[in-house]
Amino acid sequence: MTGEAGVGGAENRRPVKDRDSMIDILVVGSVALDDIDTPFGQARDALGGSAVYFSAAASAFASIGIVGVVGEDYPIERLEAFRARGVDLTGLDVREGTSFRWAGSYDYDLSSRQTLLTELGVFAEFRPSIPESFRRAPWVFLGNIDPRLQLDVLRQVEDPRLVLCDTMNYWIEGKRSELLELLEHVDMLLVNDAEARELSGDFNLARAAAWIRERGPDYVIIKKGEHGAILFGPEEIFFVPGYPLEEIFDPTGAGDAFAGGLLGHLARAGRLDSEEMRRAVVFGCAMGSFACEAFGPERLMDLRAAEVADRVRSFHEMTRFESPAVPS
Amino acid sequence: MTGEAGVGGAENRRPVKDRDSMIDILVVGSVALDDIDTPFGQARDALGGSAVYFSAAASAFASIGIVGVVGEDYPIERLEAFRARGVDLTGLDVREGTSFRWAGSYDYDLSSRQTLLTELGVFAEFRPSIPESFRRAPWVFLGNIDPRLQLDVLRQVEDPRLVLCDTMNYWIEGKRSELLELLEHVDMLLVNDAEARELSGDFNLARAAAWIRERGPDYVIIKKGEHGAILFGPEEIFFVPGYPLEEIFDPTGAGDAFAGGLLGHLARAGRLDSEEMRRAVVFGCAMGSFACEAFGPERLMDLRAAEVADRVRSFHEMTRFESPAVPS
Repeated sequence: MTGEAGVGGAENRRPVKDRDSMIDILVVGSVALDDIDTPFGQARDALGGSAVYFSAAASAFASIGIVGVVGEDYPIERLEAFRARGVDLTGLDVREGTSFRWAGSYDYDLSSRQTLLTELGVFAEFRPSIPESFRRAPWVFLGNIDPRLQLDVLRQVEDPRLVLCDTMNYWIEGKRSELLELLEHVDMLLVNDAEARELSGDFNLARAAAWIRERGPDYVIIKKGEHGAILFGPEEIFFVPGYPLEEIFDPTGAGDAFAGGLLGHLARAGRLDSEEMRRAVVFGCAMGSFACEAFGPERLMDLRAAEVADRVRSFHEMTRFESPAVPS
Repeated sequence: MTGEAGVGGAENRRPVKDRDSMIDILVVGSVALDDIDTPFGQARDALGGSAVYFSAAASAFASIGIVGVVGEDYPIERLEAFRARGVDLTGLDVREGTSFRWAGSYDYDLSSRQTLLTELGVFAEFRPSIPESFRRAPWVFLGNIDPRLQLDVLRQVEDPRLVLCDTMNYWIEGKRSELLELLEHVDMLLVNDAEARELSGDFNLARAAAWIRERGPDYVIIKKGEHGAILFGPEEIFFVPGYPLEEIFDPTGAGDAFAGGLLGHLARAGRLDSEEMRRAVVFGCAMGSFACEAFGPERLMDLRAAEVADRVRSFHEMTRFESPAVPS
């Protein structure tokens, strides 16, 4: 039931639903404009933010509803391509004021970055209000925002099948008790290795993941950048390596694209068993790797179904081996 | 043909050969005494050195001949357990003087270490002389020594099926031209990510591996510590994750144990095709992970066949997924 349909390009997606109809996936997060410098080039006013990167990836698999806020200065017409891919913008609030702007610079290794500018603008007052038509979304992605707001979102949705939650060191340090409360209500937490260590207070990632899972989430996914990702779940530990790109242009948004590939695949598959969960992590890694191939979310938006399928097969080829027979 | 025999304990190995008979694997490297401090404990006068760790791992699979040097102070009787596992010590030269001593201290993260002491002793004058009975060994491991000496070894052996070579930043910086000459004559280079980057001058590991492979080795294996290992070969890129140990006591020797598991498996399997090469890397990772479970090589020496098989199956379980069907 996987793979035949729903990957990439509009012709392969499920029918785009009306603005007021039910969506597959609700995403709540930032919608921003980014200035990005890397040793390989730069981008100005690139579409950015967690909700944007997530939607660019997830819309290859399922219909998405964004809840976010932008200022009146936001070039909303540039989101038209998202709408054409089945992204419902009903929940995107346009407010008086300026949009969230972020500027960052990457070193040559592309794994460490400097934030040069964070102008929250109207995002500082973001209070997510979930449109009626989004409240029954079966799949929910809580992008990296204040855990109090993430909790607010969960109070507004009706019994989702799976809630995937992102966070960052800023909230781990500054809103720890709120974050721990939130963890009781999410099914899957997405953190990088440093965040897992900081949150749990344990350097060992296997123990850190166990610590987090005891506080609520059935699943913890630890992102390790170029080293891939690890899923810790009730039935398994599952590793996916980083894709060995020979050219990495811009890692901005790779984590949100990962989340989009993962939840997009689950929404399309409609199942939550171990096999599907493993595949979902691979689709996440595939979309994360595509996100690094260009500035902004353009590469994700241009993907053809065959390209995604090819990359997933590459991950399979890069990791498969035949286990020796059980000794007789 | 794999798995049924030859893993662990003497009862499962191929017949131990006479001292003068042909061996499966020749290893040339250091034989040392280590003082190790980690946050979890310390060891004094632990058996150490690349040839020792390699042999501890590889002797679970095949018969080994060590070429190395120790001083008269070396507790040679402590190598008796190696002999009992089919390790031929004919090539271990006992010289007037002191043995190679190394002392190191690990931080809490166990991935960075400080070298506290390096007393080369008789190892400073090591000039490997390969016993006649070792010269037709089909498998050769060149432990981390001066590339000039590694080249010397290759002049003394007769047409091995595969030469696996280790090195380090010290030689990459100080003996670059000799190392590049050596590369023309080895089949497989084993380096960590920092060494691959330094050797090639390219930060990107995929390009770094391609650069190295153009200089001779058909295979490059990049060790990434807790992040696993990557094989770059003529037919494939193959990833194995690090094993998620909840308790890591001492990573000393893990790289040499990796080499021992890898070459040991190839010697036992007797084949060099892509499938066997992938399995060999997994056996390498398995033995590397066991090496971290105790101070010194003891854990490797105590392994039962079923434990090794279980760990290899764990790696399979941690990485397997069903690739989606090809879209019709």
